[in-house]
Amino acid sequence: MDSDQLILSGQMMLKFVADYWRTIENRSVLPSVQPGYLQPLLPSQAPEEPEQFSQIINDLESTIMQGVTHWQSPYFYAYYPTANSYAAICGDILSAGIACVGFSWIASPSCTELEVIVMDWLVKALNLPEFFLSTGNGGGVIQGTASEAVLVAVLAARSRVLNRMQEKDSSITLGKLLDKLVVYCSDQAHSSVDKAVLIVGCKLRKIVSDNNCSIKADQLEQAISDDRAKDLIPFCLVATLGSTPTCAFDDVAGLGKVCQEENIWLHVDAAYAGSAFICPEYQYLLNGVEYSDSFNFNPHKWMLVNFDCSAMWIKDRTYFINAFNVDPLYLKHDYSKVAPDYRHWQIPLGRRFRSLKLWFVLRTYGLSGIRKHIRKHIELAKLFISYLENDKRFEIVFPSITMGLVCFRLKDGSNELNEKLLKALNEDKRIYLVPSMVKQRFILRLVVCSYLTEVKHIEYAWNIIKEVATKLLTKT
Amino acid sequence: MDSDQLILSGQMMLKFVADYWRTIENRSVLPSVQPGYLQPLLPSQAPEEPEQFSQIINDLESTIMQGVTHWQSPYFYAYYPTANSYAAICGDILSAGIACVGFSWIASPSCTELEVIVMDWLVKALNLPEFFLSTGNGGGVIQGTASEAVLVAVLAARSRVLNRMQEKDSSITLGKLLDKLVVYCSDQAHSSVDKAVLIVGCKLRKIVSDNNCSIKADQLEQAISDDRAKDLIPFCLVATLGSTPTCAFDDVAGLGKVCQEENIWLHVDAAYAGSAFICPEYQYLLNGVEYSDSFNFNPHKWMLVNFDCSAMWIKDRTYFINAFNVDPLYLKHDYSKVAPDYRHWQIPLGRRFRSLKLWFVLRTYGLSGIRKHIRKHIELAKLFISYLENDKRFEIVFPSITMGLVCFRLKDGSNELNEKLLKALNEDKRIYLVPSMVKQRFILRLVVCSYLTEVKHIEYAWNIIKEVATKLLTKT
Repeated sequence: MDSDQLILSGQMMLKFVADYWRTIENRSVLPSVQPGYLQPLLPSQAPEEPEQFSQIINDLESTIMQGVTHWQSPYFYAYYPTANSYAAICGDILSAGIACVGFSWIASPSCTELEVIVMDWLVKALNLPEFFLSTGNGGGVIQGTASEAVLVAVLAARSRVLNRMQEKDSSITLGKLLDKLVVYCSDQAHSSVDKAVLIVGCKLRKIVSDNNCSIKADQLEQAISDDRAKDLIPFCLVATLGSTPTCAFDDVAGLGKVCQEENIWLHVDAAYAGSAFICPEYQYLLNGVEYSDSFNFNPHKWMLVNFDCSAMWIKDRTYFINAFNVDPLYLKHDYSKVAPDYRHWQIPLGRRFRSLKLWFVLRTYGLSGIRKHIRKHIELAKLFISYLENDKRFEIVFPSITMGLVCFRLKDGSNELNEKLLKALNEDKRIYLVPSMVKQRFILRLVVCSYLTEVKHIEYAWNIIKEVATKLLTKT
Repeated sequence: MDSDQLILSGQMMLKFVADYWRTIENRSVLPSVQPGYLQPLLPSQAPEEPEQFSQIINDLESTIMQGVTHWQSPYFYAYYPTANSYAAICGDILSAGIACVGFSWIASPSCTELEVIVMDWLVKALNLPEFFLSTGNGGGVIQGTASEAVLVAVLAARSRVLNRMQEKDSSITLGKLLDKLVVYCSDQAHSSVDKAVLIVGCKLRKIVSDNNCSIKADQLEQAISDDRAKDLIPFCLVATLGSTPTCAFDDVAGLGKVCQEENIWLHVDAAYAGSAFICPEYQYLLNGVEYSDSFNFNPHKWMLVNFDCSAMWIKDRTYFINAFNVDPLYLKHDYSKVAPDYRHWQIPLGRRFRSLKLWFVLRTYGLSGIRKHIRKHIELAKLFISYLENDKRFEIVFPSITMGLVCFRLKDGSNELNEKLLKALNEDKRIYLVPSMVKQRFILRLVVCSYLTEVKHIEYAWNIIKEVATKLLTKT
């Protein structure tokens, strides 16, 4: 590493990014490129000789930036947000500079210890159950994504049920159990549950959600009883607080009680909505989380920490260690009993110093600053709702507790018509939304995503939606 | 995002990192802290109000830096290197600034397309088989770690064997097969194979390596034939080019032929040594890779790209898509047939724009610059070998093709004595090494790791090793 070069090139790079953020509103949120656009713009092989860093920066606009979908644009209303902040970027610069790989305590003590501390901070800030604190049997870990958190939870649950069965009958193997093992989730749960189950290879039973897109205790009880009658083995429920299609909330309190009675692992996925629990007025939504065995939410969605940072907790950390412990000598050290070896808590071995950016963000904004950010987004969503309510052509569908997502459609329109509306909006390219199909209804999702989104942007988005809808309705 | 704040804080952060690199030699490579050191130094909960960014920077030395193991120090000779460079850090700054999540083409076209292009560049630069190029049925993808690459390979192999069995008998389920499925690897293979097999839940058969710590065709053939006689189903071999304990190379050419004949998925893990294939003089080591179904190496180990960046290729990309495809409407788009949807190539859904740092590094150093870096490390390892050869108290053990790792021990010493030597060296804290236990022999591993390592550092390390050994041998 050449320190002078780092300063020189790093400053160029920071300036580029700062300019990007200053001018992001002037860029079309969706690029106009066609697949394969980049190939002709770049050489067909890596350069033999070094190039100037300034040359790379000069090339960016004409190559890379042409094909960027601007997730941080105030005209981006798709998916769910991916968070960002200068504090998080600085945390990443430090993490990249130190460049340690914190798979065990000795591999870099502060990398493990800061993670333990900030994950405890989050337990307190979100008012999560105390058993998730590192001071007891539980603990928190930063995973890359919610998908990894869900997979790791299902694996820990599988390990627990296998151990229990083997205690009764030591001849039982995973193969003998696999076709009987059942994971439950809502038909509204994220595709990461499908993927985790695909990897584990067991059965997934999706419980049909009610009109609020939520699942409840009696449905779960019925499903478990049906499955037990078929000689199946229910072992895990992934409940959702804030689903992807409509931000629906499962009845975790009721479901959790069933899980406890039935000895089923309860994982609660609050990937998006979890950040809102930092506001006391939304903590009632955590009701029932005291039944959970594990929990995750993504600070990288809505808490100003950039991707990747998915916060996960487990009630009893021995289940991680049982599920993942492989211990070669070159990784052994004398401290494994006194500090968590996070390599046993995750799929990868290596890990970056991601707690730095979480620490930087929590300190730079303070809990009050993060609450302000969350509340502002919710207010903007409410503003959009008020626009919809005053236009009879539209209806709000699947209204949930309002977070930053609003689901809507043309009230008297067919799915086909609403699909046309979505397509017309995305071809227009002034704003970007993605749809969802819920209960056979094609719906449009508007999510307040960017840190830069203000009242004027919501007004602007609404005007575009009205304009495109009017054009469409006149045509048809 | 406040652009001015980004510039201001970012520059402070860059300066801190640049100073860190300038003074890294003055720091003890191993910290002196005890487990739990950080807790009393930080508040027990997150601050309510915002703090100044400069305050955070001011706190770093007295808190975080006290507990850092300095992986980038020229006195760090442990594990394997984790790469770094100013170019890679700049790539990460840009990735963090754009902050898109490139799980599909439309989610940010350049994020997918640049990855396709630079992964093709690497195929050509390393002289990997042409079938890995995106222009055919294959393709490359950036995984987070080699652990994920190995897991994903085993899952693709499992999907292939299951499909084949189901073609013959549609009543076959994964559960019925699981207890029969066997993965093979060397007893020298990385713990990531154990972890992948633990997750999949099938059997792992470790083949006893020869005196060079390498496995060969006849041993694999024997193992397969034994297992088939037991009604087991061999379906995957993970071969290693450059093992973790001794940098041993399996006989991939021989093994590959067996895999082809036996219809077994061959995954080649060249996590560390793969970077050396960028030098034509080491490409002969790729002999046999033409039999592989998938291949990975870690640019984040030895190719100046910082963690995480594990490059992986597959011969037939449909196996990824078969293994991982879950397709909800909110992720569907019109382009999925013309560009890879990388979400089907990996465990997580979300992904950062990691190809930027690979692109920056390849351009900033050029292939010639990267070759220079690799060759320099190998020369330094050879220098250390020459020291060992001239001191009769030591022996070089398990000599392999020399990369950056040298394995050695006190020639006439017991395992216990060598363990004492390693312990004394790490308690001394002037340099940091980790051991390995190979063929019942406790060995010391010295790996040239840092970009900053020069002849003088190898001399220094050697002098410390001699000094500590002399002290130890005098005592005993």
